[in-house]
Amino acid sequence: MAGTDRKQAGLSGGPPVILNQPQLGENIGLAARAMLNCGLTEMRLVAPRDGWPNERARSAASGADQVIDGARVFPRLEDALADLTHVFAATARPRDMVKPVLTPRAAAVGLRTLIAEGRKPGLLFGPERMGLTNDEIPLADTIVAVPLNPAFSSLNLAQAVLLVGYEWLQSADATPDYQHWGGGDEPAEKAELMNFMERFEAELDDCGFLRNLDQRPTMVRNLRNLFQRARPTSQELRTLHGAVRCLVDKRKD
Amino acid sequence: MAGTDRKQAGLSGGPPVILNQPQLGENIGLAARAMLNCGLTEMRLVAPRDGWPNERARSAASGADQVIDGARVFPRLEDALADLTHVFAATARPRDMVKPVLTPRAAAVGLRTLIAEGRKPGLLFGPERMGLTNDEIPLADTIVAVPLNPAFSSLNLAQAVLLVGYEWLQSADATPDYQHWGGGDEPAEKAELMNFMERFEAELDDCGFLRNLDQRPTMVRNLRNLFQRARPTSQELRTLHGAVRCLVDKRKD
Repeated sequence: MAGTDRKQAGLSGGPPVILNQPQLGENIGLAARAMLNCGLTEMRLVAPRDGWPNERARSAASGADQVIDGARVFPRLEDALADLTHVFAATARPRDMVKPVLTPRAAAVGLRTLIAEGRKPGLLFGPERMGLTNDEIPLADTIVAVPLNPAFSSLNLAQAVLLVGYEWLQSADATPDYQHWGGGDEPAEKAELMNFMERFEAELDDCGFLRNLDQRPTMVRNLRNLFQRARPTSQELRTLHGAVRCLVDKRKD
Repeated sequence: MAGTDRKQAGLSGGPPVILNQPQLGENIGLAARAMLNCGLTEMRLVAPRDGWPNERARSAASGADQVIDGARVFPRLEDALADLTHVFAATARPRDMVKPVLTPRAAAVGLRTLIAEGRKPGLLFGPERMGLTNDEIPLADTIVAVPLNPAFSSLNLAQAVLLVGYEWLQSADATPDYQHWGGGDEPAEKAELMNFMERFEAELDDCGFLRNLDQRPTMVRNLRNLFQRARPTSQELRTLHGAVRCLVDKRKD
């Protein structure tokens, strides 16, 4: 089954997510949901406009209660950052200041390295609409900028949290690129497949479909390649046997 | 400036996004916004519950009008898929059938390859809540499953479109992992930096801060390393010169 053997490493710890002066409770809730989707559980709120706790936040979190219940509120951004050693700030808007800028993918690697070294990094997001101010950006070590369509790059708060969190999770995720549903339903052994193909060809000979002997080898080759490519299971081969038998019996009636 | 030299290849063409029986106009709009964020512009809607056009969709699209205006509506899923050669279906729920499953990152590579070969792949998303049915899944070639926190993996429709679209865009994006804001503000030349450091040290000698000659080499080394690490620009060095001058003058008053 897809996903069951993925590494769980990304799901413990993880950097705190600091939302600076978020406005709508709904956006805080959606951000909490995106955080938990990505295994991030520690939320810090700086002066949320509509106060805290906030029922709209809880409702929008769609079950990410552990993030909502554990959220801590701080009066000032400086307080929310106080115990951190590195601050990664997400912003889409370039500013007129000298500052390193990482993609979310590169930032995720940086976060993992820092945490492995025992440092305490955090992910900072500004308020809806304007994002972090030019006075707040200098409190961050590094900027995280999501590469998007330059002509249309505006993300809402929860989407920004989702993309940065997604890369955090991917950076320690061991899900294979390619898997299969139906792990218990392996392709049938080749003998079963050959048995069906030969039976099918015999019936096609019998009904005259393969009577052109010049074309017969090519047609057989193509049909065999088609069934080979489909990699049928034993159950599917039994279904095909039954279908062929029914067609034959019907004809012979 | 971050992002200006990124490759534009990801922003033309791109597979159509098919939303099967979407319910809320708002979700269609949010999906359109996420699509355009990722350079995907062709939306197909199969039997949208609340009809089409839909003003709530336009409003939620936050300016992604080109996607909304270009959306085509189809009565049946089969019609929406008719001209495609490959269908990638996003679903979080494993089903009891044999089917290849890719991560969004691997799917993006597959999509690029198919498009480069002249094939016509599409990205299929099911309705809110239940997703694609077991009768719809067999119409797809490949499943796309986003690896998320297995204990909390539910995404809303627009978030699923965003993550799959994001990987599509990243797969042809040339944004360097590491950039700098302030490209015009290069670190000062080393002579300027040395000039400031020597002037600073001379003032620290003068005020007695470096009077312990045993410790002086270590302190000078540490201060130099600090300023070196900060890589100040010429403007920042002028500011530091001014600050030191002011402190000295004040003291000497």
